[in-house]
Amino acid sequence: MKLRSLLTSAMALTLSAVLASAPALAQDKFTFRLAETWGPNFPIFGDTTKRLAETVEKMSDGRLTIRIDSANKHKAPLGVFDMVKAGQYDMGHSASYYWKGKVPNTLFFTSMPFGMTADEQYAWFYHGGGMELMQEVYEPHNMLSFPGGNTGVQMGGWFRKEINSLEDLQGLKMRIPGFQGEVFAEVGVNPTNIPPGELYTSLERGTIDAVEWVGPALDLRLGFQQIADYYYTGWHEPATELQFLINKRSWEKLPADLQEILRIAMRSAAYDMLIHSVHENSKAWASIREKHPNVQIKNFPEDVLTAMAEANDKLLAEAAAGDPQAKKIIDSQAMYLKNARNYTDISLRAYLNTMAEINE
Amino acid sequence: MKLRSLLTSAMALTLSAVLASAPALAQDKFTFRLAETWGPNFPIFGDTTKRLAETVEKMSDGRLTIRIDSANKHKAPLGVFDMVKAGQYDMGHSASYYWKGKVPNTLFFTSMPFGMTADEQYAWFYHGGGMELMQEVYEPHNMLSFPGGNTGVQMGGWFRKEINSLEDLQGLKMRIPGFQGEVFAEVGVNPTNIPPGELYTSLERGTIDAVEWVGPALDLRLGFQQIADYYYTGWHEPATELQFLINKRSWEKLPADLQEILRIAMRSAAYDMLIHSVHENSKAWASIREKHPNVQIKNFPEDVLTAMAEANDKLLAEAAAGDPQAKKIIDSQAMYLKNARNYTDISLRAYLNTMAEINE
Repeated sequence: MKLRSLLTSAMALTLSAVLASAPALAQDKFTFRLAETWGPNFPIFGDTTKRLAETVEKMSDGRLTIRIDSANKHKAPLGVFDMVKAGQYDMGHSASYYWKGKVPNTLFFTSMPFGMTADEQYAWFYHGGGMELMQEVYEPHNMLSFPGGNTGVQMGGWFRKEINSLEDLQGLKMRIPGFQGEVFAEVGVNPTNIPPGELYTSLERGTIDAVEWVGPALDLRLGFQQIADYYYTGWHEPATELQFLINKRSWEKLPADLQEILRIAMRSAAYDMLIHSVHENSKAWASIREKHPNVQIKNFPEDVLTAMAEANDKLLAEAAAGDPQAKKIIDSQAMYLKNARNYTDISLRAYLNTMAEINE
Repeated sequence: MKLRSLLTSAMALTLSAVLASAPALAQDKFTFRLAETWGPNFPIFGDTTKRLAETVEKMSDGRLTIRIDSANKHKAPLGVFDMVKAGQYDMGHSASYYWKGKVPNTLFFTSMPFGMTADEQYAWFYHGGGMELMQEVYEPHNMLSFPGGNTGVQMGGWFRKEINSLEDLQGLKMRIPGFQGEVFAEVGVNPTNIPPGELYTSLERGTIDAVEWVGPALDLRLGFQQIADYYYTGWHEPATELQFLINKRSWEKLPADLQEILRIAMRSAAYDMLIHSVHENSKAWASIREKHPNVQIKNFPEDVLTAMAEANDKLLAEAAAGDPQAKKIIDSQAMYLKNARNYTDISLRAYLNTMAEINE
């Protein structure tokens, strides 16, 4: 053996000893490209991906970097599912119900009309089998899906005229997309979808009579409070949960510690968005109350709510009848909701009503 | 230079090259000893510290280990503050309001009567200045304090006789500790504290007339549903937040990445406990409903609630008058609660009431 090979083999031995004793020396660096459905600096939603990227960077000491492309960059806000599936992006930030045209059962993992609140839905995801059901739906597409941040209860929308009965909904033109729009259609509303940039003008000019958006913080920026007096309370999206989507091959490239760092960072960022939403909505609602006293909070009348609940039940029954997986998910959610709500009613709801009563 | 030294120096060079290219090789291992107030395998609370230890271990690839001592080991359930302050333990899991006898303003960081819900309180901690105020209180004791997991709204307690008016509370012997007990005392109750192991017998034998514990999941284990028919809804601890306490010198020994891993793991474990509480309470309440139909849910009558709210205001005013820091915290909480609750009322409360109405 020549000196040179002896040196080399000694060095190799040393190296492998180091590698064995310090497994974290599998110190490869990884960059995950993330496509988000939102434009750049979109409040609350966009803060969630930024928060994720920052905490992952710090926790991994720079070994995992998340590079965020907003919609202005990738030009395909509703192409996130396909881009992550194809591996064009390692991960995405979007909402599961956007994919229902492609994969119908993705509908169930965002928020359902008359469904669970955020806390109840997280409990269903993490303790009630929800994560497993969601994975069953995403598995054939080689992706992992995780909760991606909650908006809390979305408001029922801005109306220019008061709704006093089912009659008032007949033929009403309303911006309300997706399954929620289908429920509204069942009770006589004419649902339309209009790009965000045109909503204000459409409502002002009477092209539409009502618009559902998110809640005070995001609604305030679009200015509806200037042209609509009636702000209805929510029933249709009680706990809108965004989604982190991850390409499975990208995920499997990560060592176990970085997988756990990413998993916990996503979980924490999702909860954080719920709390951030509470904060921003509280501020925005205080501002609307102060500067726009014209705005009145209304609940939909009981006949409207009952009709919408029946329409919702009918549409769910149809979905369940045609698809055993849909039935399994719908049944799981209904059963979980029943017990969880019985408890929410004697704890959180009772407390909030007690406080409202003594503050009257 | 002899072959041997040549080899050694070549190996050293190789090693230092490896070390330089992989900064995370500052791979010192750390063990944090954690003292928890609870006994071993205490449900929900104890699951929180276990979950923290597991995620920290995985995320750090074994570089940070948390070793948990339950109360049976350290024998000082209410000594956690002192032990962590002295550096006898690196961290603790307990509740801030336990230290009010030592440091009065620690009272404000767990849950206050008629105060914020869990979501509102997290928003106050993370966006409304709560973390900074808490740190101001713990700073002189060389500790960091972080939210440590929420129970959700605690139930108002088990009563053997129905409470129909303020009159019925006069001289009533009730297990209810701390500040909440002081509020009850102001309206005529005789508050006592009794070790958990003796609660059932005390209630059964009439040594006490009522007992406040936590919520269905933890109450069920103590068996009160067998001997008390009236289960009152909560007002006194709407969002009991446990606490992670960390000795500042221990914290400062950690490199930045491990600090961030620990910070995010604590944050996530705290939220997780809220969700876990929803799950376990829902299950337990379903079981009580099924097996103990004698149990009736009651709200305290309005005159009782109004008197307790006034007593609470009076005690807070006294605390604020004597201590500028207490005043600052009380004012911050009151102001935050006002805006947050106005929003909760039009979103979560409105939704829960809508659902209750259509399900009637």
